[in-house]
Amino acid sequence: MTSTIDETHNPDLQSWVGSANGHIDFPIQNLPLGVFSVGSKGPHIGVAIGDSVLDLHGVANAGLLDSHWTLALSLGCLNAWFAHGPDDSASLRRRLSELLSQESNRAKVEPHLVGRERVTMHLPCTIGDYTDFYVGIHHATNVGKQFRPDNPLLPNYKYVPIGYHGRASSVRVSGHQVVRPKGQRKPPDADVPDYGPSRRLDYELELGIFIGRGNELGSPIPIGDAGGHIAGYCLLNDWSARDLQAWEYQPLGPFLAKNFLTSISPWVVSPEALAPFRRAMPLRPEGDPDPLPYLWDECDQQAGGLGIGLEVSLQTSAMRDAGMAPHQLSKGEAAAAMYWSAAQIVAHHSSNGCNLQPGDLIGTGTLSTSSRDGLGSLLEISQGGKAPIELPSGEQRSFLEDGDELILAARCEAEGAVTIGFGSCTGKVVPAN
Amino acid sequence: MTSTIDETHNPDLQSWVGSANGHIDFPIQNLPLGVFSVGSKGPHIGVAIGDSVLDLHGVANAGLLDSHWTLALSLGCLNAWFAHGPDDSASLRRRLSELLSQESNRAKVEPHLVGRERVTMHLPCTIGDYTDFYVGIHHATNVGKQFRPDNPLLPNYKYVPIGYHGRASSVRVSGHQVVRPKGQRKPPDADVPDYGPSRRLDYELELGIFIGRGNELGSPIPIGDAGGHIAGYCLLNDWSARDLQAWEYQPLGPFLAKNFLTSISPWVVSPEALAPFRRAMPLRPEGDPDPLPYLWDECDQQAGGLGIGLEVSLQTSAMRDAGMAPHQLSKGEAAAAMYWSAAQIVAHHSSNGCNLQPGDLIGTGTLSTSSRDGLGSLLEISQGGKAPIELPSGEQRSFLEDGDELILAARCEAEGAVTIGFGSCTGKVVPAN
Repeated sequence: MTSTIDETHNPDLQSWVGSANGHIDFPIQNLPLGVFSVGSKGPHIGVAIGDSVLDLHGVANAGLLDSHWTLALSLGCLNAWFAHGPDDSASLRRRLSELLSQESNRAKVEPHLVGRERVTMHLPCTIGDYTDFYVGIHHATNVGKQFRPDNPLLPNYKYVPIGYHGRASSVRVSGHQVVRPKGQRKPPDADVPDYGPSRRLDYELELGIFIGRGNELGSPIPIGDAGGHIAGYCLLNDWSARDLQAWEYQPLGPFLAKNFLTSISPWVVSPEALAPFRRAMPLRPEGDPDPLPYLWDECDQQAGGLGIGLEVSLQTSAMRDAGMAPHQLSKGEAAAAMYWSAAQIVAHHSSNGCNLQPGDLIGTGTLSTSSRDGLGSLLEISQGGKAPIELPSGEQRSFLEDGDELILAARCEAEGAVTIGFGSCTGKVVPAN
Repeated sequence: MTSTIDETHNPDLQSWVGSANGHIDFPIQNLPLGVFSVGSKGPHIGVAIGDSVLDLHGVANAGLLDSHWTLALSLGCLNAWFAHGPDDSASLRRRLSELLSQESNRAKVEPHLVGRERVTMHLPCTIGDYTDFYVGIHHATNVGKQFRPDNPLLPNYKYVPIGYHGRASSVRVSGHQVVRPKGQRKPPDADVPDYGPSRRLDYELELGIFIGRGNELGSPIPIGDAGGHIAGYCLLNDWSARDLQAWEYQPLGPFLAKNFLTSISPWVVSPEALAPFRRAMPLRPEGDPDPLPYLWDECDQQAGGLGIGLEVSLQTSAMRDAGMAPHQLSKGEAAAAMYWSAAQIVAHHSSNGCNLQPGDLIGTGTLSTSSRDGLGSLLEISQGGKAPIELPSGEQRSFLEDGDELILAARCEAEGAVTIGFGSCTGKVVPAN
């Protein structure tokens, strides 16, 4: 199921919300949903438009939307709305596009606009379960090389979209502080571990996928239907303590190295908004196996690639004090990084009967490209700490220091389409408690 | 924090609920909480007493309990009650013990009793996150031997209580059917995997630990406080598809091999009820390292062992048809299996700042003893399928077949104490969809 391009994507479409026209992230062609509050009012569901947020609680209760949507859009999280599924999602998008473009609607709608600088953003959903995948093949190769230079990818990688469960309770919205975690650290030259603050704190650049309609326990989602179970996308930072990870992860996988915090950007960009930026999945290199039938769908092969540009920047305390802008660490693209599509992720996750629920969050895994300037973690950029990077401030970094702020951003560009963005996903490191 | 023995444990204490006196699982010395419904009434919180359930929604609203508890005890799940913490938990136990023992209370309380055969049990909590540990050292050794005969335990095992995140959405209460999962299977002699029903479906005998009071993100729970964050215990079956697991689990751990279903027994046995059955943690063998300071607590060493007897039985379709009783597969004990205590599990889980929340579920990992007749999975009992077991029906089993019903049970016995039980945790395997 792939969304089609319609009038809502028309590059000539303008909004009467002036700041939306030419907006770097939120023109009228985007219309991402999120959850916000203003002072003690809210949390309400809203849509980002230019420098404003349109309060859908207000718009729905004013009778401007389909009355069947009012209950779900009046709640303080998006779970119930996401359960409505892709047809209602597309209908809401069309209706919001009308309301925000037609001058005739302005008087009724404008009272429900709030300046974005006034709002506090919240998690878009109550996240029942959070799963993290590992579909970034260049990341898997780069990390694998540090352990197994001759054989970086394990034999299952090109058959199985590898994933594991993460911690739902510690997912936070962009801006939440990153308390440096403590844990067991055992450097290779030490005889025994000790417990203390992580010395190798890192980020991982990922996309987040929100589940829309769920499935019953015991009933897999066929690959051809999988796209229709995706409510939207966000940026995701899978903060990682590499020293804790190296010591704890065998045999059952990462645990405390990851579950101290996961940050996501607050706006959920819909599959409909991404329609102009879809492309074919990259051709598998000669010799790679075809996906097994339960992971193979011709439409998905043709349009499962996400043309989402990704960018990571770092600003240290010293840079902030000196008024220096954040320094770009990498610039890449989701489609160039993902060996498996979002639909393949969803189909695989449910292929054993595991039930996905509206509002569940899935991370793609770190999205590094094959290029040196498209790497999605410091582990890769600094080659495990062996090659620290130089910052414009004259500082060096192998891993994150206290006071460092990390900024993820995503933007979609395509010929004939208006550029849209995700907004940012940020986090600043503070010392261990 | 260890609960003390008081009047509620008095072996001479009798209930006016006749079936409770001498009851195999639920005498008045137990008083586990659960969530039940009767027809369209409920779900309500109740306490198991003999062959009955006492409806705490009714008892609280009749003014028979502390009024500060009424709200939390009137809900359809135990999360809010568990957040009350250990002092209220102990007070409720004392009050219920009075109400159910003193004849003077009978007239007021008896109208709120329901026959247990009439109730449908539900999950005790809305489970926010489910984590599975691996603290059964004999299980870890037995499984490790199948892969690494000379070096079964990895170097981190005696320092790190190994754990990983599981799937909360697919936890179900005892009795839920086990749909045989499909997935990728690659036998060692096959060149490529295929997708189909698991051929090596297994169970894992575990205890479940429910979190009571939680902790804030970024604030670890000190080991000395960890016991006070535990609301209670249940039986847990970590159903496992060994063929899926062997192929998928590297490098990030088990995923689809586990998340198709996890079953738990419906009654939450409180730390207070277990007080008479606590004992010292087993002495670490000569040469094993001491726990790191953040995992070391003298009280926990003295009383962190759980004297809970564990038993697994199997009944095949043929046995059922022939009227044959379930066949005992194993009989062991939690204290003899656990290298790390429940308090160490909780302290470790939060040691990096990860926030635990009321109603979160933690599995201990498979609890095998060092004895051949105390093994907690078919993988161990059949030595990976090489040594099928003979059943009284003349059938053989290496792994579970369709129609097999698996029954976990737990019972605590100690000199001078009344024996209490957990009730059973069952599941019957049905064919793949």
